[in-house]
This record gives sequence, structure tokens and C-alpha cells, in this order.
Amino acid sequence: MKKLFSLCALSLGIATSAQTEDAAVIKSLYNTALNKQYAYELLHDLCKDIGPRPAGSENAEAAVQWAKMVMDSLGADRVMLQEVEVPHWVRGEAETALLNGKEALAVCALGGSIGTQNSTNGTLTAEVIEVTSFEELKALGKEKVEGKFVFYNRPMDPSLINTGFAYGGAVNQRWAGALEASKYGAVGVLVRSMTLLKDDYPHTGSMSYEGAEEKIPAAAVSIVAAEKLHEALSENKVTTVSLTMKCKDLPRTQSYNVIGEWTGTEYPEEYIVVGGHLDSWELGEGAQDDGAGSTQSMAIPYYLSKINYKTKHTLRVVLFMNEEYGLDGAKKYAANALLTHENHLAAIESDGGSGAPRGFGIEGSEATLERVRNYRELFAPYGIFEFPSSHSGADVGQLDKTKTLLIGYRADNQRYFDFHHAATDVFESIHPRELELGAASMAGMIYLIDKYKLGVQ
Amino acid sequence: MKKLFSLCALSLGIATSAQTEDAAVIKSLYNTALNKQYAYELLHDLCKDIGPRPAGSENAEAAVQWAKMVMDSLGADRVMLQEVEVPHWVRGEAETALLNGKEALAVCALGGSIGTQNSTNGTLTAEVIEVTSFEELKALGKEKVEGKFVFYNRPMDPSLINTGFAYGGAVNQRWAGALEASKYGAVGVLVRSMTLLKDDYPHTGSMSYEGAEEKIPAAAVSIVAAEKLHEALSENKVTTVSLTMKCKDLPRTQSYNVIGEWTGTEYPEEYIVVGGHLDSWELGEGAQDDGAGSTQSMAIPYYLSKINYKTKHTLRVVLFMNEEYGLDGAKKYAANALLTHENHLAAIESDGGSGAPRGFGIEGSEATLERVRNYRELFAPYGIFEFPSSHSGADVGQLDKTKTLLIGYRADNQRYFDFHHAATDVFESIHPRELELGAASMAGMIYLIDKYKLGVQ
Repeated sequence: MKKLFSLCALSLGIATSAQTEDAAVIKSLYNTALNKQYAYELLHDLCKDIGPRPAGSENAEAAVQWAKMVMDSLGADRVMLQEVEVPHWVRGEAETALLNGKEALAVCALGGSIGTQNSTNGTLTAEVIEVTSFEELKALGKEKVEGKFVFYNRPMDPSLINTGFAYGGAVNQRWAGALEASKYGAVGVLVRSMTLLKDDYPHTGSMSYEGAEEKIPAAAVSIVAAEKLHEALSENKVTTVSLTMKCKDLPRTQSYNVIGEWTGTEYPEEYIVVGGHLDSWELGEGAQDDGAGSTQSMAIPYYLSKINYKTKHTLRVVLFMNEEYGLDGAKKYAANALLTHENHLAAIESDGGSGAPRGFGIEGSEATLERVRNYRELFAPYGIFEFPSSHSGADVGQLDKTKTLLIGYRADNQRYFDFHHAATDVFESIHPRELELGAASMAGMIYLIDKYKLGVQ
Repeated sequence: MKKLFSLCALSLGIATSAQTEDAAVIKSLYNTALNKQYAYELLHDLCKDIGPRPAGSENAEAAVQWAKMVMDSLGADRVMLQEVEVPHWVRGEAETALLNGKEALAVCALGGSIGTQNSTNGTLTAEVIEVTSFEELKALGKEKVEGKFVFYNRPMDPSLINTGFAYGGAVNQRWAGALEASKYGAVGVLVRSMTLLKDDYPHTGSMSYEGAEEKIPAAAVSIVAAEKLHEALSENKVTTVSLTMKCKDLPRTQSYNVIGEWTGTEYPEEYIVVGGHLDSWELGEGAQDDGAGSTQSMAIPYYLSKINYKTKHTLRVVLFMNEEYGLDGAKKYAANALLTHENHLAAIESDGGSGAPRGFGIEGSEATLERVRNYRELFAPYGIFEFPSSHSGADVGQLDKTKTLLIGYRADNQRYFDFHHAATDVFESIHPRELELGAASMAGMIYLIDKYKLGVQ
């Protein structure tokens, strides 16, 4: 049995002498990150000196300039601003909603929604009908829906351990709720916030009118407000909501991806990308989403330099613009990489918040997965055990996965949706050690990718 | 290779048909916990209706009565109050400290310290000398130490991933600092708080005079205060501290372990224990330490009943009294078990806060460890991958490990020492899902212990 176990250990890729050296390098990356807390320092500045930075906004431009300055100061061989055309949706004044004309409900416009400027006095008042799915909506039909707000109230499933799956199971209400409701003559939609936390903060996020004959206003309601509304409807009290939203789309404008480059010593024409998105929604400070991923990525060349490791491949820190409302930056980056025949060995994204490290989601063939998993034992001391076959991330996922190893860093996500797209997504929600453990984890993975040329198999 | 992998999988105990059934039972425990959030509800009541509950205090007695009532209401077959004699140390008014007679430092008395009542006007003023170890203290000797405060300023090591180890590497300053300093004529000690978070809250915790010829006051200083003090000393500014503490020991008094029993259907004379400690320090609400472990334990029979699982062995929820300042409850419980020849199959403790689950530390032989690890794959869907050979816990660790399988539930501990023994250890620091995931994890382990009679091998 013992012999069999050793054989297993060997075949599963545990303990070789190179791995002893690798273990020491990775340990030194964690030591450096936990002692320096540089990502945390950067994130503080991004959140507090700049703050929320929706695509197209002045703050987003300030963030671009700030990120360029930081990467210059870190000794990047080149920092490029890659032009990206982005939408420019603005929220305007804080939204309001009244239940039955008197009780305030915590609401916010969904990203991309039209406002209620065209309604009488700028306020849209209508009865409310509650549904939990598009099937239910369809069954109600035009007769019951016309002229009303459709209130989507299907919660995220709390019994799912991965809260990302719980989000995935509910978010179509937010994304396509207005489109679906408009088919039956609804005048607006109210969507239960995408969160598992029972508080009174509405959570915004993108929605789409694509394919809609008519655009109707779409707002998120907080969980407290959703339960209040549900109760009023259950008790058959005549229930109207009066919604006031001043949001609107301005003309598309120009922004940038920020790309910092540290030239590789042996393969300067082959790239390893690490990144997050620089834009955020505007209710909080975009700390978890995705200041965390952006600043973790920016800290990585710093931590590698502190341990005197120079990558053989060119390391690119890429801060993508407008992940939230169209993925324009990621699409541009990928299109340009294709056009100019850039050779991307691998790309890692961090866009799941700043929780303690749990793993890496990997795209690709079984052979590709196994190649990476070969090194999994090196991460066990840091609580990293999950290396699933999985979508990597919205931004790096735009790259060609048949040519580039695409990896999504996975932070513990129990708390992520507490803050996601809400006013509570602020610097104070970040734990310094958990953030830095994430930066170190990605730095360790980059070291292995670079040393062993881990790419698609 | 594939064949070898399958063989490995088999030998390592993955995927059998019984495990498919087990997986379903365990899943239903997690579902129940995440939906009901009963531990969280109990913890709210314990923290907000009762609050801090140091051994010997009225609050501790209120907590005993409350816990008994809850377990009665949960249908325990028997709820026992087991008499325990406990110390009764009281903090008195909030402590104060002034640097150079003017600047306030955030301090608190260490648990068990004498106060400064015997100094002129009740305030002890002395110069300060800083050390980072007992060796340094010894090298300084009586000449440099006599008549001064010894300021212990060795930080917890931030580069250790397991913050428990970082705590273990620094806590001798708190526990034995006064004893050691008194050997060289120090008049008091100031100890850097045992935390990795740079804030201004002092963290208390137990200290001992055992073997000391003279008792001298011992206080914790916050990290901010420690750094202020360190700076003043580095700059050679004449540095005195004036410390005022009104704490004192009252006569030992009587308290109780609370033991709820759910009689086993097949082996009523064999016990499975799950527990935490009901007492806490008095600066916060004892939410993380150890309201979390207490309420997780109390929720377990509720969750088992919700899925209609009756244990074959008698399940005991044991809430130990006075873990913090002498382990009296645990010693009494273990001594009584020995005296009355009670047969304890296994005991699980939760006393590491309410972070997301990471694993179970197991005491015992390699065979015992392997027996438990056989079931490790069942916990992988819940992010649990760590089953180290390890001390179980301060309370259940009093039981005879040659006869009883002793397990310590392991929560992610990156944040634990942020709150540990400080005023910030309040209900608001608890994340409901993480708390409940812990309760479900322990419930799952109890199910397996019960079904497969997992004990020492």
C-alpha cells in the first residue's frame, strides 16, 4: 500500500527536486506579498484617490493615467495605452422608488437602462406583477402584464456552494428581464438584486435591449425592498411603484486598455498576460470588482522583481477597459493580438474579488489541464486545491483558447456577491492578506508558466 | 496512465457507491444549513441578548441558562449542567495609558493580570524598555530592566500562511512576559497585541504568574500604540508610560458546562461530542471566539433532525466553560468521563472562528488519520481539502486521544486574529454563509463518524 501510494504520488506529480526549488521560489513570492502589501496599497489609492470609474467617465480616464504612471514607476519596459471605443452611460441623480406612493424602496438603475424622463413629471407609476421566471411571464401573457412593472423575484440559490453558479442561475432576470417583459407590454422592470446578503443595498449590473422593439426602464431593488414588495403583493394590497431614474446613454467615447510590458529575457515575442478590468460600476469604489484584480496584477512584476526573477517570456499586465458594459477592451485586445499575430503563451485573469485563494480555473484540453495540475501540490501550502476545467474569465476569455492557456484565478467567493455592483464595494471590504495571497498565487502560477513554458497542449 | 490514476483513485478512497449515498446526505446537510441559517440566528441571540461572558460573570451564567433552554427546545433527550469551578477575574473600568504623560495609548489588561491599584494614585508610571524576545530581556539583565516597563514588541510573522502558527510564534510574550520580566525587576509589561491587522484595538488574552516571585501588571497595547511607542523609543525621546488598570481577581466561583444529549439508537452508551466554549473575553461579544463554535455545535442536532437522521451513537453537544482562562470546563468534562468510564467514540471542536471551511485537524495514529481521510473526497465540493495530523482543540484535547478520535474543525483563519480577544469580536464580524458552511461541515463529519464508527485505530 505504501509503495502504491508512492507510485501514485509520483504519477500525480508530487515532489521532484525541481519542485523543491519551485516551492522555495513560490514561498518567497508569498513572503514578499504578505510583507510588502503593495497590491493593497495600490488598491487604496485607486479606490480612495479615484473611486468609481465607469467606462467613458472622467474617473475612468484618471484611472488609465494613474495605472500608466504606476507601471512606469515599476520599471515597465513599455506602457501602452490601447485605444478602445466605449459606451458612456451615466446614472445621473440617485434613483428613487415609492411603494404605493409613500414607502421608499431602495433601487438603482441597471447599467444601460433608459431613465423615466419621458413619463409624466419624470416619474413612472404603475402597478406591479411578480414573476420568478420568463416562463411564468409568458404564461401570464399580455393581458396580465401590459401597462405594469414586471417584478423579477427569483433569488440566487443559497444552497449552491459556488456563489458564482447561484449568480449564473438568476442573472438572466437582470440581463434580459426588460427585453422579455417588453414583449408583453410591460412599462418597466424591477429586478431583485443579485446577492445572497439580506441587506438594503441595490446591486446594479449590465442589461440589454438587444432585439427589443421598445426600451423600458429597468431597476434593481434591494433584497429588503424585494421582500417588502413581495409581501405587499402577497397581501393583495393595491401595489403601485413610482420610479424616478435620470440615467441616460451619452455618445460612445474613447478610452484605453493600459498595457505594461516587461520584456522577456529569452522569448521576448511570446507573451504571458495577467490582468483584470480597470472600469467599475459607479455605486461603490470598484474595490472587489475589479480594483482587486487590477492591483493584484500590477503588483506581480513588483513582487517578481523583489525576488530577482526575470521572466523569460514577455510579461504583460493588461488592465482591460469596460468589462462591465460590453467587454470592449478585451475584444479590442484580442482582435489586435490576432491581427498582429502576437504569440500569447498564457493569460491569467483575476475578476472574482479578493477572497482567500482557492484555485485556478483552466480552459483547454484534458492534456492542457493535466500539464498545469502537475504543479498543484506546489500550491497546497497556500490553501489552493481547486484546478477545475472552467471558463477563465470574461476578459482573457476573448483570446484564442486553442493557442493560449487561459486561466481564471479563483478567490473564495462566499462574500463576493455581498458587494458586487453595490455601494458597499469599497476599499474597506478588502482584507489585505487575502488580497495579497491572491497576488502571490498568480505570481507563482506565472513563474511556473514562464519556467516550464506551460501553454496549450 | 489512466489505469494507474484509477487505481490510485480507488486506493485513495474516492468514489464507491456508499459514498454516493453519503454525498447526498452531506449535500442535504449543507443545503439545510445554508437555507435555515440557524447557527447564525443563535449566534445573534448569544451576542446581542447576552454579549461578552467571561467565566464567573453574570453573563456567563445567563449564557448557560440560555444554552440549556435552546437545547431543551431542540428536543434534547437530556440537558445537563455539569458543575465547574472557575476563576473570576474582572476588568473593572476601561484601562488607560499615557505616553510621556500626555499621548493616549490604546491598552487593555491581559486576562489574569493584577491592576495598578497599589501604585501612587492608582497609576503606575515608569520608563519603558523594548525587547522582542526573552533572550534579549535576559541579555539586558537587571541593570537595564529594573524599575521599568518591559515592552514586548515581536510581531506575529505575517509571512506564515496559517495565522495560528504566527500566533503561536508570538504568544509567549503575552503568556509569560510578566513572569520573565519580573525576574529582572521590571514593574510592569506592555505586550504588542496578538494580531496581524494594523489597527488601534488592543487584544487581551490569558497570562500567567505561575512561578513568579512578584506579580506585576501586564497590558496589551494595540498595534498602532505599539508602533507609536517603538518610534518614540527609537528616537530616544524620554519615554515613560503611565498605566491605570483596575482589574482584579475575585474568589473562584461555580459555573457549568452545558451538555445536551441526543440518545443514540444503537449505541446509547457511546458518545460523539461536538462543541465549543461558551465563555469569552469581555471586550467584544465573543462572536468569533467562540460564539461561532458554540452555536455551530448547537445547530448540528437541528440540522440532523431536519434531514431525518438519527445518530446511532449518542450525540452530545458540549459547551465548555472557561476555555479562556484555565480550561476548567474541559478538564472537568474529561476527568468525569474518565471517572465514570464513559466511552467517547469521537469529539469535534470548533474554536478557530467562523471563516469558510478548510479542513479538519486530526489527532492520532497514521491508521486513524487514514481512516478519516478515506472520506475526504466527500468534502471537496465544499472547499475542504485539509486533513492534517494536528492538535484538535484546547477543549476536546483534554480527552484521552488513545481512546477517542479527536478532531478540530478548521475554518479559514486569515481574518481570525483581526478580531480575536478584541472589542471588534462582535456579531457583525460573522459571515452567515461561512458560519453555516462550518456547521454543515461538522454535521457531515459527525454523520460519517456515526455511520462508519470512525474512532481511533
